[in-house]
Amino acid sequence: MNTKERILKGSLALFNEEGEARQTAVDIANVLEMSPGNLYYHFKGKGAIIAALYDEFEAGMRALLRGARGRITSIEDNWLYLYVLLEDIHGFRFFYRNLGEILARYPALAVRFRALLAEQRQTISALLGDLEKAGVLHLMPRMKPVLVQQILMMLTFWLSMDAVTGAGEEEASLIHKTVFSIMTLVIPHMGGAGLEAMQAISAYYDTVMEK
Amino acid sequence: MNTKERILKGSLALFNEEGEARQTAVDIANVLEMSPGNLYYHFKGKGAIIAALYDEFEAGMRALLRGARGRITSIEDNWLYLYVLLEDIHGFRFFYRNLGEILARYPALAVRFRALLAEQRQTISALLGDLEKAGVLHLMPRMKPVLVQQILMMLTFWLSMDAVTGAGEEEASLIHKTVFSIMTLVIPHMGGAGLEAMQAISAYYDTVMEK
Repeated sequence: MNTKERILKGSLALFNEEGEARQTAVDIANVLEMSPGNLYYHFKGKGAIIAALYDEFEAGMRALLRGARGRITSIEDNWLYLYVLLEDIHGFRFFYRNLGEILARYPALAVRFRALLAEQRQTISALLGDLEKAGVLHLMPRMKPVLVQQILMMLTFWLSMDAVTGAGEEEASLIHKTVFSIMTLVIPHMGGAGLEAMQAISAYYDTVMEK
Repeated sequence: MNTKERILKGSLALFNEEGEARQTAVDIANVLEMSPGNLYYHFKGKGAIIAALYDEFEAGMRALLRGARGRITSIEDNWLYLYVLLEDIHGFRFFYRNLGEILARYPALAVRFRALLAEQRQTISALLGDLEKAGVLHLMPRMKPVLVQQILMMLTFWLSMDAVTGAGEEEASLIHKTVFSIMTLVIPHMGGAGLEAMQAISAYYDTVMEK
């Protein structure tokens, strides 16, 4: 791992653990046991680190969204895919926990995040469309944009909700609950297959939550 | 209307229109065509105005939540009640649009808002319980906390979602869509009555959205 990568990895861990707002470039250098001068040689301040972290997150998320097209056709695939998406978002949780605040402080990121939301919206819509084509999902035309919006809202604000309520739930449990919640949005529109999937997901959920 | 009320009303309108973060006490005095000294005589700075506005919002919301207990038993009542709740929240939209940011700047409000969320959660749960007792709603025991959390998340973040996506939807339309979205969370668990309600709500929604 080169120094640049070490700085990014260390900063992400620090922000996720302590929040980003109160950290300075000097704090980051201290945590990495590095001189502020050396840090500055690689990144011209905290803003540059945030931008580089967002680059990484965005590239990863776009790859995940594009990789999904046309390949995820069963309920089980969607269920697993949701875990992957939520784990990716959880890795960047300092950003999502204080979404409005960070976007207000970094307006350039707000523009890019808006574009990412639009791509997420398209992907969710395409995934639901694939389930419809596969005959698993039966949506009234009016319901589709509503369901897409509900899923997008949950994907965007599950970590803010946890932060605002002060629940501070542990990662695995919060992800399980959120996957379960998103799947229950879709399942009522699946008829008999949905009931089966619900039972399978519930059983899995019980097993995991008991650990 | 006395001077204090005039300041609160003017500040709320200004914050809702322009956002709260960039406004100063002097800006508020200017908008009200009042000297900063006169404003300061009534409120010791912007923080005191925010606190007084939150007092008002909280008192109104708590009255709404307590008024609901045991009195809202049909689907139609719930549907109308949602409009009232969302309109109340919309009146205080500067707060909800930048929820995380404002709570970070006013930690005393964060504590109070958390308590308000807990009361909202209890009320939603009680309202769903009343629908169950009335035989309108049939929830698997596992589904109830999931549904309560989904509704609470939507009530809390519908305005943030609008802000983050930059949609900036007009009030009536945004409230209609959000009511529709929340009702569609509940309706799949209502059996035949749900389908009827869905059709009634859809028809109403079409009429309103065409205007």
